[in-house]
Amino acid sequence: MLAAAANPAPRDGEQVALAIADLRAALDHKVVTNAAIREQHANVTTYLPNEPADAVVMAECTQDVQTAVRICAAHGVPVVAWGAGTSLEGQVNAPHGGVCIDLSRMNRILAVNSADLDCVIEPGVTRKRLNEELRDQGLFFPIDPGADASLGGMVSTRASGTNAVRYGTMKDNVLSLKVVTADGNLITTATRARKSSAGYDLTRLFVGAEGTLGIVTEITLKLYGIPEAISSAVCPFPSITAACDAVIATIQSGIPVARIELLDEVQVKACNAYAKLSLAESPTLFLEFHGTDAGVEEQAQRFGAIAEEFGGGPSVFSTRPEERSKLWQARHDAYWAALLLRPGAKAVATDVCVPISRLADCVEETKADIDAMGLVAPIVGHVGDGNFHTVLMVDMADATDLAKAKQFMGRLVERALAMGGTCTGEHGIGQGKMKYMAAEHGEEALDVMRTIKRALDPGNIMNPGKVVTL
Amino acid sequence: MLAAAANPAPRDGEQVALAIADLRAALDHKVVTNAAIREQHANVTTYLPNEPADAVVMAECTQDVQTAVRICAAHGVPVVAWGAGTSLEGQVNAPHGGVCIDLSRMNRILAVNSADLDCVIEPGVTRKRLNEELRDQGLFFPIDPGADASLGGMVSTRASGTNAVRYGTMKDNVLSLKVVTADGNLITTATRARKSSAGYDLTRLFVGAEGTLGIVTEITLKLYGIPEAISSAVCPFPSITAACDAVIATIQSGIPVARIELLDEVQVKACNAYAKLSLAESPTLFLEFHGTDAGVEEQAQRFGAIAEEFGGGPSVFSTRPEERSKLWQARHDAYWAALLLRPGAKAVATDVCVPISRLADCVEETKADIDAMGLVAPIVGHVGDGNFHTVLMVDMADATDLAKAKQFMGRLVERALAMGGTCTGEHGIGQGKMKYMAAEHGEEALDVMRTIKRALDPGNIMNPGKVVTL
Repeated sequence: MLAAAANPAPRDGEQVALAIADLRAALDHKVVTNAAIREQHANVTTYLPNEPADAVVMAECTQDVQTAVRICAAHGVPVVAWGAGTSLEGQVNAPHGGVCIDLSRMNRILAVNSADLDCVIEPGVTRKRLNEELRDQGLFFPIDPGADASLGGMVSTRASGTNAVRYGTMKDNVLSLKVVTADGNLITTATRARKSSAGYDLTRLFVGAEGTLGIVTEITLKLYGIPEAISSAVCPFPSITAACDAVIATIQSGIPVARIELLDEVQVKACNAYAKLSLAESPTLFLEFHGTDAGVEEQAQRFGAIAEEFGGGPSVFSTRPEERSKLWQARHDAYWAALLLRPGAKAVATDVCVPISRLADCVEETKADIDAMGLVAPIVGHVGDGNFHTVLMVDMADATDLAKAKQFMGRLVERALAMGGTCTGEHGIGQGKMKYMAAEHGEEALDVMRTIKRALDPGNIMNPGKVVTL
Repeated sequence: MLAAAANPAPRDGEQVALAIADLRAALDHKVVTNAAIREQHANVTTYLPNEPADAVVMAECTQDVQTAVRICAAHGVPVVAWGAGTSLEGQVNAPHGGVCIDLSRMNRILAVNSADLDCVIEPGVTRKRLNEELRDQGLFFPIDPGADASLGGMVSTRASGTNAVRYGTMKDNVLSLKVVTADGNLITTATRARKSSAGYDLTRLFVGAEGTLGIVTEITLKLYGIPEAISSAVCPFPSITAACDAVIATIQSGIPVARIELLDEVQVKACNAYAKLSLAESPTLFLEFHGTDAGVEEQAQRFGAIAEEFGGGPSVFSTRPEERSKLWQARHDAYWAALLLRPGAKAVATDVCVPISRLADCVEETKADIDAMGLVAPIVGHVGDGNFHTVLMVDMADATDLAKAKQFMGRLVERALAMGGTCTGEHGIGQGKMKYMAAEHGEEALDVMRTIKRALDPGNIMNPGKVVTL
């Protein structure tokens, strides 16, 4: 659509110094330049290098964010938003320097509208705290990416996780946002109405934009009543394919599973070792059903019958909270168990998502690649959506090991794209996956994204070097 | 964000004539300039004047659309997409003249992927035909706006309807689009994966854009298994407030109602007269439950108990297809029954949507306004989402009557906005509701929409004069 413009010139130290002076004048003690704090805010959980901002602003309100963005805009200095630091693709890094805006102090729950099943919160609220605060009212927010991420971060990476098969992703559960745009203006993307056809969907434009188009300072979320009954099931299968076929049949038959997770035999073995469990060391599905007492029993029975058809079982079921928690222990421990498989190595999570009809093929081919390369990489999948992670154990100090890991990851993405899938189901693009954007979207669609970025952030100050390059 | 730019100069006849000559050279007999055909393609169902395009292109494939858009772009001539002509806010009008692209011949179902519960179709497929074609495979597409709209049109207005309370709107049910952009390029907005965090959500950018950013030429939709059992219920209530309170309690309790519709007593009375029914002439809820045999029975029972708490009942239930259809007859007939209330008048449908906690207030205040103004305007609502329509009977030949109707509609929108709602739940902005955009979104957010429009359609040729003015 348009020729790629050059990236902006690297910001020189003078601009940054002037911006920091203005920030101090306006925001005083909320501006921090201490190296340890700056490094902590560029914490990346993977192989990506730590690239700290020049200063961190501890924002306490939307006005602080507007002030900081306006000052940075005036000096052409980058702005990187920070929530809880749990992102996985370098979203919080500052490759061009600039100012990190820490939103963790903006953690107020502003309203819970129980009749409307929604709430209004600041972006620094974390999902665990939100659910603690909602519990007394019989409500919950279902999106669970595993980490105790901030809701602002979850909005910005379009997060999802284990519950998405039933409740959707962040895209489906945000009603409205307040966003500080690149010029420091504050906009509201939608009303609290459950649906609207009034113009362009600004809410969905900022969900998943990773802070490259604006900074989210208020979020209106859909809520759900805590189910009357919750039932869990664990069911081993003779093969990945059998497990995936059972998942497809389960979804097709309309059983409204709330979670349906796959652990491959490597992961099950790791969990057995980690927590002294005695699960059958074969591909295993972990399920959760939400509904009425009768409803969850019926769902569990119907799933059991489907599992049997595909050679799965015996399934173990429970509706009691403690037993359920024990039943799911292996799933909850998966990450920590994987870490023990290769002490000293770091876990790098991959994140492809494919049409569910191709899931078994994609997982099996990936496992063959893991074996052929001699990698340690158990597999955990949100298989109801066709999304799975390999928890790839990498010795970051060993260049050969890292190179092998990158080769493997590149091939995994190519495989997923060839199967009609995406390079990221829920972790986002950040820095780590920009190289796959053209292959996934095509140059013309990527140009539409660049055109939007240029139009809404003409100075390229909002989290530059992420998602799309200009 | 940016100062409003002037609208483009009206296209002169010469530009249009040159474009039509080029179109004829490239597309031959697919180009029609006959006045009757042009008028039919600018058919508006309301008080808006008919504003025909200068030519209609009967597109047969994506390439035709690209050719037409490129020619129009070269001459700076407007392009208006047309699907089935069922839109309600002047979306298909051509106020600046130009070329209408009729997509109704692009009506192939390209793939049904039953394992993935999705299908790929052309935009001219209508929803009834899609469901006829899917039935044999045990699948259905749930979005039902009432009219037999084209799926391209439903994408473009972000349509929803009676099933949205359970299955969401078009926003939630489109996986991917192929779109011809304003320069004639063809982009694919996403893969067939169920979820992705790979960059900006281009799919949701074009859903609801009403052809102002590009023309949809292929659609990948989510599908669902036809429920094992469907149960219907009809339940009268002593008041609008009692009915709305029962709806809130039903939703809060987690009963996964598939449809929950309100008819006010005026509408029920009209339906009784139209179809010789003998329903109690009070506010009435029409419900549908989807699930297993046991599941729908349980849902119906639980709803019955809630209804009783709010003074509703007796409820009538049925699971047999013919009985269900009879039970819902009043709801199905609502529009035709309303027409008989004032013979010779035209029906204008309003479309506000408010947070459900404000629904009873909004409906009651609106009814009071109807009574005070002496209007004929029965009410039908998708109340599970807080969305309701008044079917306002207007004598288009009577200027006073039309002025009164416009006054009423303006106040209705103001009321909905004051309650945190939207001016349109599902009909879109078109020409009719542009005047409310600033009040609903605020100037800054509207400027973000304008900036996007300008960036993606710098020549302002895509359906100009709709959604946002530049």
